[in-house]
Amino acid sequence: MPTILGQNQYGKAENRVVKITRDGAVHHIRDLNVSVALSGDMDDVHYSGSNAHVLPTDTTKNTVYAFAKQHGIASPEQFGTALARHFVTSQEAIRRARIRVEEYAWERVDTTASEAASGAGSASGGDGGPRHSFVRKGQETRTAQITYDGDRWEILSGLTGLTVLNSTDSEFSGYVKDAYTTLPEDHDRILATDVTAVWRHDTADGDGTAPDGGVRDWDESYARAKAHMLRAFAETYSLSLQQTLYQMGARVIDHCAGIDEIRFSMPNKHHFRVDLAPFGLTNDAADGAVYYAADRPYGLIEATVLRDGAEPRIPVDMTNL
Amino acid sequence: MPTILGQNQYGKAENRVVKITRDGAVHHIRDLNVSVALSGDMDDVHYSGSNAHVLPTDTTKNTVYAFAKQHGIASPEQFGTALARHFVTSQEAIRRARIRVEEYAWERVDTTASEAASGAGSASGGDGGPRHSFVRKGQETRTAQITYDGDRWEILSGLTGLTVLNSTDSEFSGYVKDAYTTLPEDHDRILATDVTAVWRHDTADGDGTAPDGGVRDWDESYARAKAHMLRAFAETYSLSLQQTLYQMGARVIDHCAGIDEIRFSMPNKHHFRVDLAPFGLTNDAADGAVYYAADRPYGLIEATVLRDGAEPRIPVDMTNL
Amino acid sequence: MPTILGQNQYGKAENRVVKITRDGAVHHIRDLNVSVALSGDMDDVHYSGSNAHVLPTDTTKNTVYAFAKQHGIASPEQFGTALARHFVTSQEAIRRARIRVEEYAWERVDTTASEAASGAGSASGGDGGPRHSFVRKGQETRTAQITYDGDRWEILSGLTGLTVLNSTDSEFSGYVKDAYTTLPEDHDRILATDVTAVWRHDTADGDGTAPDGGVRDWDESYARAKAHMLRAFAETYSLSLQQTLYQMGARVIDHCAGIDEIRFSMPNKHHFRVDLAPFGLTNDAADGAVYYAADRPYGLIEATVLRDGAEPRIPVDMTNL
Amino acid sequence: MPTILGQNQYGKAENRVVKITRDGAVHHIRDLNVSVALSGDMDDVHYSGSNAHVLPTDTTKNTVYAFAKQHGIASPEQFGTALARHFVTSQEAIRRARIRVEEYAWERVDTTASEAASGAGSASGGDGGPRHSFVRKGQETRTAQITYDGDRWEILSGLTGLTVLNSTDSEFSGYVKDAYTTLPEDHDRILATDVTAVWRHDTADGDGTAPDGGVRDWDESYARAKAHMLRAFAETYSLSLQQTLYQMGARVIDHCAGIDEIRFSMPNKHHFRVDLAPFGLTNDAADGAVYYAADRPYGLIEATVLRDGAEPRIPVDMTNL
Repeated sequence: MPTILGQNQYGKAENRVVKITRDGAVHHIRDLNVSVALSGDMDDVHYSGSNAHVLPTDTTKNTVYAFAKQHGIASPEQFGTALARHFVTSQEAIRRARIRVEEYAWERVDTTASEAASGAGSASGGDGGPRHSFVRKGQETRTAQITYDGDRWEILSGLTGLTVLNSTDSEFSGYVKDAYTTLPEDHDRILATDVTAVWRHDTADGDGTAPDGGVRDWDESYARAKAHMLRAFAETYSLSLQQTLYQMGARVIDHCAGIDEIRFSMPNKHHFRVDLAPFGLTNDAADGAVYYAADRPYGLIEATVLRDGAEPRIPVDMTNL
Repeated sequence: MPTILGQNQYGKAENRVVKITRDGAVHHIRDLNVSVALSGDMDDVHYSGSNAHVLPTDTTKNTVYAFAKQHGIASPEQFGTALARHFVTSQEAIRRARIRVEEYAWERVDTTASEAASGAGSASGGDGGPRHSFVRKGQETRTAQITYDGDRWEILSGLTGLTVLNSTDSEFSGYVKDAYTTLPEDHDRILATDVTAVWRHDTADGDGTAPDGGVRDWDESYARAKAHMLRAFAETYSLSLQQTLYQMGARVIDHCAGIDEIRFSMPNKHHFRVDLAPFGLTNDAADGAVYYAADRPYGLIEATVLRDGAEPRIPVDMTNL
Repeated sequence: MPTILGQNQYGKAENRVVKITRDGAVHHIRDLNVSVALSGDMDDVHYSGSNAHVLPTDTTKNTVYAFAKQHGIASPEQFGTALARHFVTSQEAIRRARIRVEEYAWERVDTTASEAASGAGSASGGDGGPRHSFVRKGQETRTAQITYDGDRWEILSGLTGLTVLNSTDSEFSGYVKDAYTTLPEDHDRILATDVTAVWRHDTADGDGTAPDGGVRDWDESYARAKAHMLRAFAETYSLSLQQTLYQMGARVIDHCAGIDEIRFSMPNKHHFRVDLAPFGLTNDAADGAVYYAADRPYGLIEATVLRDGAEPRIPVDMTNL
Repeated sequence: MPTILGQNQYGKAENRVVKITRDGAVHHIRDLNVSVALSGDMDDVHYSGSNAHVLPTDTTKNTVYAFAKQHGIASPEQFGTALARHFVTSQEAIRRARIRVEEYAWERVDTTASEAASGAGSASGGDGGPRHSFVRKGQETRTAQITYDGDRWEILSGLTGLTVLNSTDSEFSGYVKDAYTTLPEDHDRILATDVTAVWRHDTADGDGTAPDGGVRDWDESYARAKAHMLRAFAETYSLSLQQTLYQMGARVIDHCAGIDEIRFSMPNKHHFRVDLAPFGLTNDAADGAVYYAADRPYGLIEATVLRDGAEPRIPVDMTNL
């Protein structure tokens, strides 16, 4: 046979599962998109079409929904861990499971606050408002990827679509000029990007859900990582987007025990100061300027930041989970 | 000539303009997408290709950027009004200008609050933080459309992409059953939708920017309309999405002087309770259930709500600005 | 009551229906996206939530699938006509039905031809190849909208996403210059656009399916309209995109009996000749040039062309079906 | 320092370049989207913001456009090779360049053929028609990735968005059943997928552009790979999508000298036969059936096929170029 099978995986992708938890009149929501990818003893199905080792992708979908009911959804990481363990331990032919999760955040419709915001005063007390109404927050998408091969765990968390902008404290100068360089230096520019980040948790203790033997608070871990990323973006006087990226990564690792590696993919969303001189107008950054927000092309900066001594394991080509 | 020209318009669409205003170290941002459509004495350019009456679309783009500098961007409505007036009053051949605006909301990176949120304590005081860092809010897109023909103004405001969900207090029953009906009644379902709304302001006084002779606070007007829409969605015990839609519209008109008409396009984003009986599991809404969030098909409910006596003018086919 | 209900409609949108017809070993495919919108005596459901007049949107979905089996899908127009008639004639509360259809074209996998194309020679004869394998054509999306109110029919056909480009025979000059004009004239530019078109068929004879009392060949009608549109685009020496648009519309009406009105929405997809002078290179159109294909902003040209004497009925704001 | 920099790369992404070549009145078009990613001695820019080693992304953009003029675009692979060589050999700090290219196919507007297609007969001869009018083909996107580190070349070609469907000769049965399995076996189902494929060329001879010392015909190579992929899809009686995938890969490797490895990512685009029994209708595949084309979730099958003895080098996580 002149050809052979290489790495392969299969499963049901993008299972959209919403779990409502009722705490009396107060409801809670988790809104996920779950993708299952399984590998193992799968030569036959590729070579001959025999499905004798194939758990149907439809079954993996059913399992996602049943597990949401049976085990609840405490976090993307916990939910993915339960699913990955199940597939690897219950199916002899399956040697490795990779669960990817996207989570969409919701916030409560705060009828009191929104009334205040509208300047209309507040009649209803805080207690009496509805507790089952939500509006999608709409900011970044939270991501996670849990991989288990029966022995080792890998747990990645991340986010995508977090759009940030500094309207000053950014320059770009002192760069290489070759025969194709026309860009003028800029000492006061807008710096804007859509952050996609993936970070890897220490799973040295084995089961991945509790590096210290207890249960990790994945929601707190995520909030902390995002907050430090935003702070580093805001507080760095930027000489290049690379520098800002590195500061964001270093700060997450410095402040988040158990995160050993983080990789970013950050487009430089160019905001070009418009030349208004033909119309007799100045448009200096210092006076507050008008910018053209460009679509394409865009600079694209990708890099990994590591805790010193940690091994890089996040694939270079995995720009998003 | 067996064919003739009918209604026509032209202009530059999707001019992405970002305006930074500096108030000392505190910066402000407005982030718009502006589309210009002009009509008038344009037979020749269609019939013979003569551009003698055609102001280039490139010029309309330049005008958008120059006006952002010259007049600032106080609101989508104010900015659109200035542009519409300019085109109609400065170009003899142009009899009507329609300006559409999308606005993307940003919030400040609150380094103090985000630190607190991460549970890491707060070292820096509120005063010392950066004041030029923003994160895109990411919720709904605000919209506006200003039309001027040299005589009458029409000012529409709106929003799109506001995703809301009630996890209870929604039913659907008592409907018509015909030979193709299989849907079971449901007395406790999720109700979710992406709200697109367009509302029309009273411009009886002429220039559209100030119904009472003063300057309307368009930002406040928008916040108020959105807040009442959300409250009505949250507080309505829903027997049908049509009923919820009507309550949302009625509430906006009741609470917002100067809004005479509102039209909604609201998909019924179906969340189907998953049948877990094959796995020996119950999945009742009352206990907190697991749902499958479906993509397509979806119910689509569209309707106009009017102040009694007002004339309907929002086109039925204009589902979004 | 200070508010009242205006125009409203509801139904199931985006029912994705694929119909396979078997003619022995030769299969045929129709691949549609069908949206139903119904109007009528619907005050109660909006005011009080009573569903007594409401045929569920789920039922309209079921009807789409059942009709595809019972009546087949001869064309988007024929299928939409059958559905519209059904809803209006079978439900007392429903006074008007509007059916929108998108169709995606497929072509056969021609194993003989593709082998030849690959330069590998052809071993298998034309007869022996599979007759049930298709590859999506991927060009434009065909559209249709059928509206029936129990008395009058309106039948619109259309297309969207037909991307065309002329690499010469296009100029833009002789236009108005005002204080904001900086655009240089161009006597040899690329003209490119994504055509969206909607055209209206004569339905004077009543039922819309057969203006001459017979059955109209809707597929032939569509192919003819598209072909003439393409020819007019290719054969017009263009002084403006408006002129090209008009020629496309006029040609369709001239060559297609029964089409009385056509409306276009055509973005001017700008291809800017790159300034390579800083690198010591000329980049003249006449020598074959390099262009930057821009995303936003873009010129947007919209216009209606009418058979002389015909009444304009395609809504100005309905840029696509 | 507790953190260190890991793998990193930067450059300008999505440069949209269109090159027109004029051969008298006959024009030719190449329409690319080119992304540049450079790596090398870039520690300083990350650690301190020093740009002393940074060739601006704007310069890489200029280089793309200048090279399109200077060297032309013979194919995505040739163009990417020229760019990669340039960056690595001209900049001391740059040790590795990766060029990604998407290409969009156009076909000529055949005014003769389209007239015939419309049934209107043909008056104009084949010779007289325009030769500078194109319509975007709209089928798959062709891709390529060229990587050069000053020593070794890697050349990948690929495609994405090739949507194919078999309306019979596909079954799925004999699979594992566990407690979460509810799927019934199906012996006559639709098999449909959107093919994304990446294949790797033998570059053992060094410069990657000519394995045999001459110039490889990349367009012919691409057409051949695509044709064999389509044939294998059409001619395989499928017991599983995995089997079909493997046949597609094996056939490409068998018939295309110089292709040693191919990786696929193929969603199982489910077409569910609709249950019409509630309406008294049968809907058997054998009679020609009605299907619901689902969006999400979908099965996702990914696998590599290798020439026996070849080393797998296409990253598992690089599902598309």
